[in-house]
Amino acid sequence: MYDIIVIGAGPAGLTSALYALRANKKVLVLESKTYGGKIVNASKIENYPGILEISGFDFAQNLYNQVKKLGVEIKFETVNKVLEDKRVITNNNEYQGKSIIIATGSLNRKLNIDREEELVGKGISYCATCDGNFYKNKVVAVVGGGNTAIEDAIYLSNIASKVYLIHRRDEFRSEKKYLNELKEKNNVELILNSKVVSLNGIDFLESIRVVSSDNTSKDIKVNGLFIAIGQEPQNEKFKNVVDLDEFGYIKTVSEVCTKTKGIYAVGDTRVKELRQLTTAISDGSLAATLAIKEMDNAK
Amino acid sequence: MYDIIVIGAGPAGLTSALYALRANKKVLVLESKTYGGKIVNASKIENYPGILEISGFDFAQNLYNQVKKLGVEIKFETVNKVLEDKRVITNNNEYQGKSIIIATGSLNRKLNIDREEELVGKGISYCATCDGNFYKNKVVAVVGGGNTAIEDAIYLSNIASKVYLIHRRDEFRSEKKYLNELKEKNNVELILNSKVVSLNGIDFLESIRVVSSDNTSKDIKVNGLFIAIGQEPQNEKFKNVVDLDEFGYIKTVSEVCTKTKGIYAVGDTRVKELRQLTTAISDGSLAATLAIKEMDNAK
Repeated sequence: MYDIIVIGAGPAGLTSALYALRANKKVLVLESKTYGGKIVNASKIENYPGILEISGFDFAQNLYNQVKKLGVEIKFETVNKVLEDKRVITNNNEYQGKSIIIATGSLNRKLNIDREEELVGKGISYCATCDGNFYKNKVVAVVGGGNTAIEDAIYLSNIASKVYLIHRRDEFRSEKKYLNELKEKNNVELILNSKVVSLNGIDFLESIRVVSSDNTSKDIKVNGLFIAIGQEPQNEKFKNVVDLDEFGYIKTVSEVCTKTKGIYAVGDTRVKELRQLTTAISDGSLAATLAIKEMDNAK
Repeated sequence: MYDIIVIGAGPAGLTSALYALRANKKVLVLESKTYGGKIVNASKIENYPGILEISGFDFAQNLYNQVKKLGVEIKFETVNKVLEDKRVITNNNEYQGKSIIIATGSLNRKLNIDREEELVGKGISYCATCDGNFYKNKVVAVVGGGNTAIEDAIYLSNIASKVYLIHRRDEFRSEKKYLNELKEKNNVELILNSKVVSLNGIDFLESIRVVSSDNTSKDIKVNGLFIAIGQEPQNEKFKNVVDLDEFGYIKTVSEVCTKTKGIYAVGDTRVKELRQLTTAISDGSLAATLAIKEMDNAK
């Protein structure tokens, strides 16, 4: 029997473990891949308060060492099911917890074109708030057609000298208010009915090739490409205990509490305004604290 | 004209500045004392994700350097008033912002006894969640009679070998459910109708002297004393633009938004479940992001 079972060893999940272990609780962390979550792909983090600059890999390593020092138990197993009575079924085992914290993150949807992975942190980014500042007075492109793409283009227009917004259709799914604002930005140029088909550059992204629906293609010089075509949370298997929104994120009733008592959702995997390290670790610490209190008062 | 005026240069406020500066916004930070907030008094922080161990002073210094590098403008002036039109009146000047982020923190209420300040981090703490883990299998005392004191005693009972809970009255103001739980803890001993009058020890706290209402006194050996007699937010001067709860914390309508559009409250100064670095910097990043979006869409 564990006090708290954390599903996912990214920043939010490991922070829950950190807080629970420091409260002397028995904690199990289950992770299907490797610890650290999406942040391990960030080559440079400059917006994490208290650390001037760190790679995502080093950040994850530090956080892992922090919980390791407290004796965390991590098992690399894939969770298949969570039951309302706080049992967790993995590919190998079944575990019983008093509380469960779901911290499964979300995956960045990819363009799936050559060199996309190789150039992450070298011109390719999936997060304008995280990396926009690295492109001060430079030329960037955003690809996507939803609210996030438009917001990213507006955000970047305040930083970069020029922003291309590339969308495969001729109109946007975004809310009107964002579109109106976008139109007032002199340094944003829309490229509609178009797709990014290739990425060029030696060590760093230098240009992108864009093909339009009439099959004409052109190369555009850019220093950065922000890919904002959506995220993929991995929450279908939790549908028996939590509600999901239309995009698959877990709905919480107040901050990190789901509709099921004793089951919490933290970090990128839940419905929230801002997905950053800052908000992920806040969630992680809060859920652990609430779980501990609930556990102590429920006896 | 500033895009964002941040009032208070603690972790929450400086994180707002960090996010706003990285978005290329014009930011003014106003601080009445020195930067860093309450955390500068923490001798050792071990629960901040990604940093194994750091002093509060170093943490504050790092965060300050981080915003300094981005060219932050900090003025050491005392804010006397904030107006609904986003003007900020200080002891020296008047500034106009588009958005205002209130990050004025709260002060720990003190026992005001000899050596209290000197022994902070050397046995004296104002935060069980922060420092409890340093007292694993040791003897601690909690002083206070509200929910926080009871919660702290329960939290610490899972970590320390023995917990004294000292309260100056013969009953607690705390909710029933906490009290019932407390009674089930074998290692918690109540000392009622009593006050802590002195702190003893050479380099580190070794014992406390407790005097009861019948004027008998005794020395109790403890390794740690957690002072949980309340916090004092400093928000009276903002009452024209925000609502305060019974303890003086700023009420927010959703996370960091106050009732006045364009005025945000972040960190310890607002009504919230958990007051930690993690939740403070989360607030700071969120408020800046929301302010930036609002600014861009409002044009």
